[in-house]
Amino acid sequence: MLVARKNPKRRAPRPRNPERTRQRLLQAAFREVYRYGFQSAGIDTILAATNVTKGALYYHFESKEALGYAIIEEIVAKFPRERWLLPLERSKDRDPIDALIGIVQSIPSRPRDLKAGCPLVNLAQEMSQVDEQFRKRLERIFHAWQEGIAMALRRGQHQGTVRRDLVPEETASFLIAMVEGYEVLAKNAQDAKVWNMGIRNIVGWLSSLRAPRNRSRS
Amino acid sequence: MLVARKNPKRRAPRPRNPERTRQRLLQAAFREVYRYGFQSAGIDTILAATNVTKGALYYHFESKEALGYAIIEEIVAKFPRERWLLPLERSKDRDPIDALIGIVQSIPSRPRDLKAGCPLVNLAQEMSQVDEQFRKRLERIFHAWQEGIAMALRRGQHQGTVRRDLVPEETASFLIAMVEGYEVLAKNAQDAKVWNMGIRNIVGWLSSLRAPRNRSRS
Repeated sequence: MLVARKNPKRRAPRPRNPERTRQRLLQAAFREVYRYGFQSAGIDTILAATNVTKGALYYHFESKEALGYAIIEEIVAKFPRERWLLPLERSKDRDPIDALIGIVQSIPSRPRDLKAGCPLVNLAQEMSQVDEQFRKRLERIFHAWQEGIAMALRRGQHQGTVRRDLVPEETASFLIAMVEGYEVLAKNAQDAKVWNMGIRNIVGWLSSLRAPRNRSRS
Repeated sequence: MLVARKNPKRRAPRPRNPERTRQRLLQAAFREVYRYGFQSAGIDTILAATNVTKGALYYHFESKEALGYAIIEEIVAKFPRERWLLPLERSKDRDPIDALIGIVQSIPSRPRDLKAGCPLVNLAQEMSQVDEQFRKRLERIFHAWQEGIAMALRRGQHQGTVRRDLVPEETASFLIAMVEGYEVLAKNAQDAKVWNMGIRNIVGWLSSLRAPRNRSRS
């Protein structure tokens, strides 16, 4: 039987599904923070984008800060994990330098990626000085990223594919600094040429980490 | 003759000196923006720090954005110029690799510098996507910085102290990416060890740019 709705323009309320609501809030908040930064992110914009009430938002996240921490732990942490750590683990039997070159070359570089920059760097730059709870959570992500690369380099040293004179942790953090530094330059320039030049330079540097007998592959 | 003031707690108005007021506003605004970012910088905090009225602020800067542009052009632009470009010009007769190593090693690394990060990166990260006028002004600073380093490297190539196979503009932007990348990591870690390790790695890389016959100096 057809029943006329009181207000046909209003969408029917979705079935209650707290986890789904939480995820929608988290994704909308991430997009808003990714664009404007955490401090300038508008709670009202997030509510409007999700069609969720303020009460429901604060049911899931007790404060704006708690929402920020969840963004870091549940979304931002995924980037280094999915783009770097999982591919490195999956290629345990390969030359880690080849694996790292593959990873660097596959970092997304569509105009919208360059324009928005790296979510981890954006938040680390904005919040490290302002809020110690943000800083610590972001630091854990940098550490895990560094440790994953260092492990791969150590493995390469044992296999004889990576130079033995380099210190894996230092080299890992140098690589992260290079990638993040070019993210900053490309975000400012909004120019794929800047990013592509960066990747070329990083790949050249990565090739210089090969053990001498492997150099012919560079 | 002593005359009782109506309100002894109120400071006497300073003699009118518009340029001095403008400079005080600019410096206070820079400190506020350097700490919290441009979007979160509070106009009221800047006024309280300078004891200037809102009317006087808007007499000197027609909008918050105009104040931001002045911060970029009159304060932020000084950092690469004074720390990098002037020392490079002054050492025209020296080996540019030695000059660059000296510059990198003298970047301030007191805890408060590491904690606050690089003013240029902070603003570029925050504002490049949000405001095209900010982006362009910051881009000009990056360009001048890159061009200054590239010129020094070209000079070294002519002198025979720098490898001829490298592209000066690319190498200059690689160096800037490394420095800015480590600024991000050190700002997040708030740990001088991270910065010092970065400087050591960058100096090692700079040494690899020497022309072969100059390598013994590295």
